[in-house]
Amino acid sequence: MTEIDRLREQLRAFAEARDWEKFHSPKNLAMALAAEAGELLEVFQWMTEPQSRDLPPDARARASEEIADVLLYLVRLADTLGIDPIDAANRKIVTNAARYPADKARGSSKKYTEL
Amino acid sequence: MTEIDRLREQLRAFAEARDWEKFHSPKNLAMALAAEAGELLEVFQWMTEPQSRDLPPDARARASEEIADVLLYLVRLADTLGIDPIDAANRKIVTNAARYPADKARGSSKKYTEL
Amino acid sequence: MTEIDRLREQLRAFAEARDWEKFHSPKNLAMALAAEAGELLEVFQWMTEPQSRDLPPDARARASEEIADVLLYLVRLADTLGIDPIDAANRKIVTNAARYPADKARGSSKKYTEL
Amino acid sequence: MTEIDRLREQLRAFAEARDWEKFHSPKNLAMALAAEAGELLEVFQWMTEPQSRDLPPDARARASEEIADVLLYLVRLADTLGIDPIDAANRKIVTNAARYPADKARGSSKKYTEL
Repeated sequence: MTEIDRLREQLRAFAEARDWEKFHSPKNLAMALAAEAGELLEVFQWMTEPQSRDLPPDARARASEEIADVLLYLVRLADTLGIDPIDAANRKIVTNAARYPADKARGSSKKYTEL
Repeated sequence: MTEIDRLREQLRAFAEARDWEKFHSPKNLAMALAAEAGELLEVFQWMTEPQSRDLPPDARARASEEIADVLLYLVRLADTLGIDPIDAANRKIVTNAARYPADKARGSSKKYTEL
Repeated sequence: MTEIDRLREQLRAFAEARDWEKFHSPKNLAMALAAEAGELLEVFQWMTEPQSRDLPPDARARASEEIADVLLYLVRLADTLGIDPIDAANRKIVTNAARYPADKARGSSKKYTEL
Repeated sequence: MTEIDRLREQLRAFAEARDWEKFHSPKNLAMALAAEAGELLEVFQWMTEPQSRDLPPDARARASEEIADVLLYLVRLADTLGIDPIDAANRKIVTNAARYPADKARGSSKKYTEL
């Protein structure tokens, strides 16, 4: 059992023990994930890029907690849809490698913007 | 090496080969993650909750791709911050278990809303 | 002077009095707007659609405050870009009317999903 | 009738003519607004802050269109909730002025982060 499998099983048991499956439609979980992504934005929104690369401890702790929240909702959402997120990510890496050949995409944010 | 470690290593090599580290500040990656979370919302925004629990194949394929995109940016963001997303998620599960005792939170979205 | 003009002028004076123009790059303001949109999602994420159409007073007050935050950042962002948001919205209404002819789009969320 | 009133009336007629009121629950409209806020992030995500202050014409046109989309969903959402967005924004400006006194908040992103 992988680490993502373990998270998935814990989240399933957590929802079941609280009778929360009824709230956990994919629609609602996608909203919750996006709301957590919004909290992640808040950590960085008034920082410069260099500041964001060198976070003070309190901001780093907040970022860590929001990253956790996004990951937990992502794993739970994928589970309710019967999607394996690691498989999906591995397939996407292959697609991206074909779409952005290293020699052509080198150093260009323009190419990247079209991702 | 776990599956998340493998994704992290591939994303690092991918960025390095394209000279994209300069674009990958945590600030920018948080924006990219939130933009992908927005694309995930688009899949579900006009569906009812029951429809979201039983996706047609094309919507399921889109959801899978957006889940992949969110996960990839999450892993890359966590890497640039030196945060282990699985550790962070495991800590958050412990916090949530204390915050939402099964007997008190049972069936209540009100409690949950305060998450 | 219209009501949006008045908001724009107040926000300009507000930022100037606090020396906040340096934080108000369009990039940062787009992040702040998206973060507020995420807080709006939180109000509705565990509600059913019928519940969202008939909010209890506290949820309605929160929705009102988040709507205000989104509007304020939108007006400020548009100002920093030299864009008139009302003009832009009026142009988009014309585009949408051509894209979704009433007789063809009638009752179909599928068409709408492509908006 | 103000410019926001006019947008509201047009959006109401637009939805009615297409039998789209059924899709326009506040929950769904909040999702659509957040998805458009995500598209706005995409415009800026790989730019530096100085680049975002001086957009090339194509990026400016995209920003304008996304600003329009956010405003249209905001007006429609507020209408379905019976909220006046201009009133809400004016109230919020008063709150913010009390919360961030010009002399104390001057030049500090820290204060601002807590907004």
